[in-house]
Amino acid sequence: MTKPRPASRPTAVKPIDPPTSDSPKLWKTGLTCIEPNKILMRGYPLDEVMGRLTFGEAIYLLLMGECPSPSIGSLMEAILVSFIDHGVTPPSTLAARNTATTGAPLRACVAAGVLGFGRYHGGDIESCMQFLDTGLELVRKGASYRDAAQAIVMRCLESGEPIPGFGHRFHTRDPRAARLFQMALELEVEGGHIQMIRAVELVAASLPEGHAQPVNIDGAIAAVCGDIGIPAEIANALFIISRVPGITAQAQEERQREHPMRQIDPKEHIYDGAGQRRLPDKRR
Amino acid sequence: MTKPRPASRPTAVKPIDPPTSDSPKLWKTGLTCIEPNKILMRGYPLDEVMGRLTFGEAIYLLLMGECPSPSIGSLMEAILVSFIDHGVTPPSTLAARNTATTGAPLRACVAAGVLGFGRYHGGDIESCMQFLDTGLELVRKGASYRDAAQAIVMRCLESGEPIPGFGHRFHTRDPRAARLFQMALELEVEGGHIQMIRAVELVAASLPEGHAQPVNIDGAIAAVCGDIGIPAEIANALFIISRVPGITAQAQEERQREHPMRQIDPKEHIYDGAGQRRLPDKRR
Amino acid sequence: MTKPRPASRPTAVKPIDPPTSDSPKLWKTGLTCIEPNKILMRGYPLDEVMGRLTFGEAIYLLLMGECPSPSIGSLMEAILVSFIDHGVTPPSTLAARNTATTGAPLRACVAAGVLGFGRYHGGDIESCMQFLDTGLELVRKGASYRDAAQAIVMRCLESGEPIPGFGHRFHTRDPRAARLFQMALELEVEGGHIQMIRAVELVAASLPEGHAQPVNIDGAIAAVCGDIGIPAEIANALFIISRVPGITAQAQEERQREHPMRQIDPKEHIYDGAGQRRLPDKRR
Amino acid sequence: MTKPRPASRPTAVKPIDPPTSDSPKLWKTGLTCIEPNKILMRGYPLDEVMGRLTFGEAIYLLLMGECPSPSIGSLMEAILVSFIDHGVTPPSTLAARNTATTGAPLRACVAAGVLGFGRYHGGDIESCMQFLDTGLELVRKGASYRDAAQAIVMRCLESGEPIPGFGHRFHTRDPRAARLFQMALELEVEGGHIQMIRAVELVAASLPEGHAQPVNIDGAIAAVCGDIGIPAEIANALFIISRVPGITAQAQEERQREHPMRQIDPKEHIYDGAGQRRLPDKRR
Repeated sequence: MTKPRPASRPTAVKPIDPPTSDSPKLWKTGLTCIEPNKILMRGYPLDEVMGRLTFGEAIYLLLMGECPSPSIGSLMEAILVSFIDHGVTPPSTLAARNTATTGAPLRACVAAGVLGFGRYHGGDIESCMQFLDTGLELVRKGASYRDAAQAIVMRCLESGEPIPGFGHRFHTRDPRAARLFQMALELEVEGGHIQMIRAVELVAASLPEGHAQPVNIDGAIAAVCGDIGIPAEIANALFIISRVPGITAQAQEERQREHPMRQIDPKEHIYDGAGQRRLPDKRR
Repeated sequence: MTKPRPASRPTAVKPIDPPTSDSPKLWKTGLTCIEPNKILMRGYPLDEVMGRLTFGEAIYLLLMGECPSPSIGSLMEAILVSFIDHGVTPPSTLAARNTATTGAPLRACVAAGVLGFGRYHGGDIESCMQFLDTGLELVRKGASYRDAAQAIVMRCLESGEPIPGFGHRFHTRDPRAARLFQMALELEVEGGHIQMIRAVELVAASLPEGHAQPVNIDGAIAAVCGDIGIPAEIANALFIISRVPGITAQAQEERQREHPMRQIDPKEHIYDGAGQRRLPDKRR
Repeated sequence: MTKPRPASRPTAVKPIDPPTSDSPKLWKTGLTCIEPNKILMRGYPLDEVMGRLTFGEAIYLLLMGECPSPSIGSLMEAILVSFIDHGVTPPSTLAARNTATTGAPLRACVAAGVLGFGRYHGGDIESCMQFLDTGLELVRKGASYRDAAQAIVMRCLESGEPIPGFGHRFHTRDPRAARLFQMALELEVEGGHIQMIRAVELVAASLPEGHAQPVNIDGAIAAVCGDIGIPAEIANALFIISRVPGITAQAQEERQREHPMRQIDPKEHIYDGAGQRRLPDKRR
Repeated sequence: MTKPRPASRPTAVKPIDPPTSDSPKLWKTGLTCIEPNKILMRGYPLDEVMGRLTFGEAIYLLLMGECPSPSIGSLMEAILVSFIDHGVTPPSTLAARNTATTGAPLRACVAAGVLGFGRYHGGDIESCMQFLDTGLELVRKGASYRDAAQAIVMRCLESGEPIPGFGHRFHTRDPRAARLFQMALELEVEGGHIQMIRAVELVAASLPEGHAQPVNIDGAIAAVCGDIGIPAEIANALFIISRVPGITAQAQEERQREHPMRQIDPKEHIYDGAGQRRLPDKRR
């Protein structure tokens, strides 16, 4: 790159960060080690992990660095299942279907769908975790969960902010949130964050008509992650990882059932899939 | 939309597909039914699925429409684990890291990474499945697996085409492929596609020096999906679903460990993560 | 990277393409040369180009390597203007608006919109150019333009293929195509491709009821690019470059005028912008 | 959608925002009106704009709602040219090239490249405009430009914040910024924002060794946009619109000159394009 060139020709240049010595400056990764015929994921040979950890457990291992305990593993699976799809109407799903109808390949549809996780859609984790942490701070200083919950809810209302982790476009009782709390209780991982959000639930439900709000899946995931030690930035990732299969399925259904370049009207759909049914008894 | 407007103002128009009658034209979805306080994924209440199906099993259910058998469920998990990450060097991972270094949010990094699954990278499933089907056609007409494999490999070599599902930038024996075949055997789902690709493996390994190639994970997944009844377009999706956690982890590591706007040189990295280790014995 | 590591720790590895000698293997770029305080775009200092070439002319220079002649420059501007926006209904625009409504930043909306240029939407250039070239081949062998056009149209109809560059979801006479042909005539750059597509226009217009189709802007751009020497892959790029401002404007209007997380129904919109008006006389 | 269904089948439901009356709720767009055979862009027939406005002028019209004056039009062209490409090293360009090397189509490469405009890369407009406005506020209260500049620079240094619009990874004197200021002066549009940033330039240049920084193109564009009345969110869009042709050219060069799935090392490139040359004299 520093080869001399004829005077009239511009010299190529080294961009930034010229190394201070002749040896190149090494950067480090601690995730996956690749050697000929060997792949170590957080130290574990990937072929050994295959068949011994589930996909959900492997995701935890890759993101957190260690295998999950059985309880945390079960909650991981449940968190990842909870957000897997929500029908045709979420804007991210519509972005994916609109891409699919132009004949774009699957990966383009998935990318378009993933981009639709903006501030208002699955991106509420950090504010929800901070919200719960503010309440827990009051508890640490001696307040009851109820009084702390009352205080942080009031702060939201006074500032005109929505209560993070609460409210839903559609559900008055988010079945996914309820199930996640039930599992956390049964698996005995319920801690301060979940207690705090249950206390906020009571306050939020008793607000005057029109202001009462249920806890939603974002809030439930934030609370559970807080209690099992998953930091906010990784919790953020779980929404995307969870929803990608749903976006995939939606894009493929669009391509298989509909003609190309159609006008997708989210209101004019009807469900024609399987009727409500129960899992076979032998499923644990 | 058909409201009369003053003459000088342009009239808004209905775009395409004016309904032939007054009732709107309904389109249909069979994936997920959303009702107030109820979410049915392929007919099963999502809160019931949470805690009873793993994420891998739920992915199969959503994409295929029915719960997997235990054997197929195990293979699904293994397939999804097999492609979860491959270090810092794949171009899709570098696209994600280059996006992360500019301070872009996680979803942008994931989208950029997903876009890097082009024709040459994880998109070989359809050609591999067709390749195996061509061989199986010969077997149906009376050829032995060995002769059929010989024939289809020769066709590739004569036309200068690479053998789909074979070869790797890096590994001479892809440990993930070997493991997947072993599991298929143990779970007794080995069928024609796997037999065919094992026969091709023998032919490909005996090619003259410089042409011998190992089966790779794309080929193994294609063969296993063929034998467990997962069609090509869904198999395609599994690569994306599997790799998204890896892309996520890589983007977050980039953001946490490196300064912004750095020049990412894929050659100048070193692994500093956990040393090689074995899963605890109690893992099934 | 080849530093010795303790036995138990995995050794980092060089990925692909180990250089055959100690000097690194250099790859080459001929587009833009960056030196401290100097930026050369195809050899021209960028600060010299600023204020002397228009954006449209600079785009031609960057993509084609030389400054355009005045005629070709005018056509470039017109081509880029022609596809700049087409209202709220194209699927790519809806993908962008659906992304915007989630609060995603502008670049995510643009990326989602760009992904919606699939096979059926602005991606018809290559097939159209091949179609015209097939006709021109017949002309070179002695056929009249009319007979050649007849032949290639018949081939499409017999194989059930749509005529590339013809038909529109909405317009029966695409005003942009007509204008582009008029300019090509006035600027005296009309050549074989434009003659061929005008001949196909006549054949296509005389097809039986329900089959008659007008030439569309994709076809007009393909023909003009063919005659001014812009290859198919660069012509492809012009659609994306042209539409990005439109996608930008649409995403920003979505964010400024609408509340977040709304259900975007493409049918239920009305135009409330400026009434039809004419450019001031002094515009050349 | 409210058709009665058999009891066991789930009822499809209307998602959000049920209209309060039977007539649908209309939303409005003021950008482009589409009618059969007519396209009005901000009221002007698009075929009339073709050949009369340049692409740069049309971009201004679409984003701002009115045709630009000749001076503002010239500055728009210059702004759009200034950011058109910056060689192979920007992370966004590398994201695009890494996508291209996998065989992904052009639109995927462009989308990946566009996603790389994060907080640290072309996204500095809003902070820069606020920074200048803070200084202008002091001027309105009676301070000299020099004292105001001193004040706002000191605030940055005290808080450890970088001076928005200043500094560059590579250039000590950004030729594009200088040219833009020169044009603004010649076209007599220089106003408060440009005066303010020139004053900051003097302060920043006199900082002690190691802290002196030049104004960069982001800052110059922010200042010029401030003085010609282009708001921050639209100025943001100009970076993306400007760079898309560059990303396109880079992705295509990657595909044409390099083999697929290569390891792209940004340091190991050399420029082999046209030598430095001057525009022909007759270019205005």
